[in-house]
Amino acid sequence: MFGFWRSAASFRVRMALNVKGLAFNETMIDLDAGEQTAPAFAAMNPQAKVPLVIFEDGVQLTQSLAILEYLDEMHRTPPLLPGDPAGRARVRALTGIWAADHHPLIVPRIRSYLRDVLGADEAQRTAWIRHWFGEGLRMGEGALANDPATGAFCHGDALTVADLCLMSHIAGAQGFQVDIAPYPTIDRITRSCLALETITRALPLNQSGAPGQH
Amino acid sequence: MFGFWRSAASFRVRMALNVKGLAFNETMIDLDAGEQTAPAFAAMNPQAKVPLVIFEDGVQLTQSLAILEYLDEMHRTPPLLPGDPAGRARVRALTGIWAADHHPLIVPRIRSYLRDVLGADEAQRTAWIRHWFGEGLRMGEGALANDPATGAFCHGDALTVADLCLMSHIAGAQGFQVDIAPYPTIDRITRSCLALETITRALPLNQSGAPGQH
Repeated sequence: MFGFWRSAASFRVRMALNVKGLAFNETMIDLDAGEQTAPAFAAMNPQAKVPLVIFEDGVQLTQSLAILEYLDEMHRTPPLLPGDPAGRARVRALTGIWAADHHPLIVPRIRSYLRDVLGADEAQRTAWIRHWFGEGLRMGEGALANDPATGAFCHGDALTVADLCLMSHIAGAQGFQVDIAPYPTIDRITRSCLALETITRALPLNQSGAPGQH
Repeated sequence: MFGFWRSAASFRVRMALNVKGLAFNETMIDLDAGEQTAPAFAAMNPQAKVPLVIFEDGVQLTQSLAILEYLDEMHRTPPLLPGDPAGRARVRALTGIWAADHHPLIVPRIRSYLRDVLGADEAQRTAWIRHWFGEGLRMGEGALANDPATGAFCHGDALTVADLCLMSHIAGAQGFQVDIAPYPTIDRITRSCLALETITRALPLNQSGAPGQH
């Protein structure tokens, strides 16, 4: 797997691999140093993004949500999607709130455009990031809070891909000091997730290259 | 179904319903007039977004990618995902390029923030939209062009959800006069799609409320 310590999408895949009990090596591509556009990596992944996962059978995949679905199809235990179609649809819709509607808004290429083309200064760029992390929390809370399908985790009492996407959103939000306390359901589910060693071992700040790591 | 003529995500679901041969009614929520935040609609969908699909059995779904997966699970013929896990992963990864990485960048709430918070004028907002539509085309072409899995459509010679997401990106790009000619694989697949009546009947400009429609 090619990833980056801070990458939310890499974090999602790392958690899923841990939950499924699959061993993996992760090569860190330093997005801050622009390593994703270096010829060696760009030749493997023209989208110049992490994560890129290369499986032992040669299958090579990008896009974290596609990778999560693939892992769940190939390694059924423990399942990361519910057994019923309506439940799966609810979980996939929740992943969309964080991984599709909000995550793409705060990635490096967006920040570069805000700075280089729109002339946004650092305070404006930080406000942008904090705003969209907050919106993702607000919308997630709205979808979870009064739905009886919500349990100890986003969907019932078992971990699903929705929780992995929520956790990647939370890690980013906390990195920008966005307060989670106003979102009690999300706060509670976050605590459920952080009680799992498979999650904490995958946390961005516990990876090579993160501040305080080597 | 609650949708809007111009909504890319509504367009995706409309195409899928047509392909599956499922009859539906669509109530248009005028996003330009802010009807998505009116109490009657917001009570049904706290995310205040379209599409919202309510099935005959009472299942109520948001998020177009989750709805497409659900439709494909409940109505198998014709399939909109390949039969093999690696093929499904490739198709899902392609959907991510357009529906997750780029579409969320150009929706009304982003344009409002650019205008109201960052003070971007109309020319800057249009340049933003055109830039990200172009990036989605460029990345899509890179993923499709030299991959032998690409056929008459994004994945082989049968329509998949990747094509539906590509078409929703194309319709938006064309609405902003983004030239598709520099992306020959995408141009060719777009023609394959537009030869299908199930696609053309779903096109934004053929819906109630669109310019020239009533």
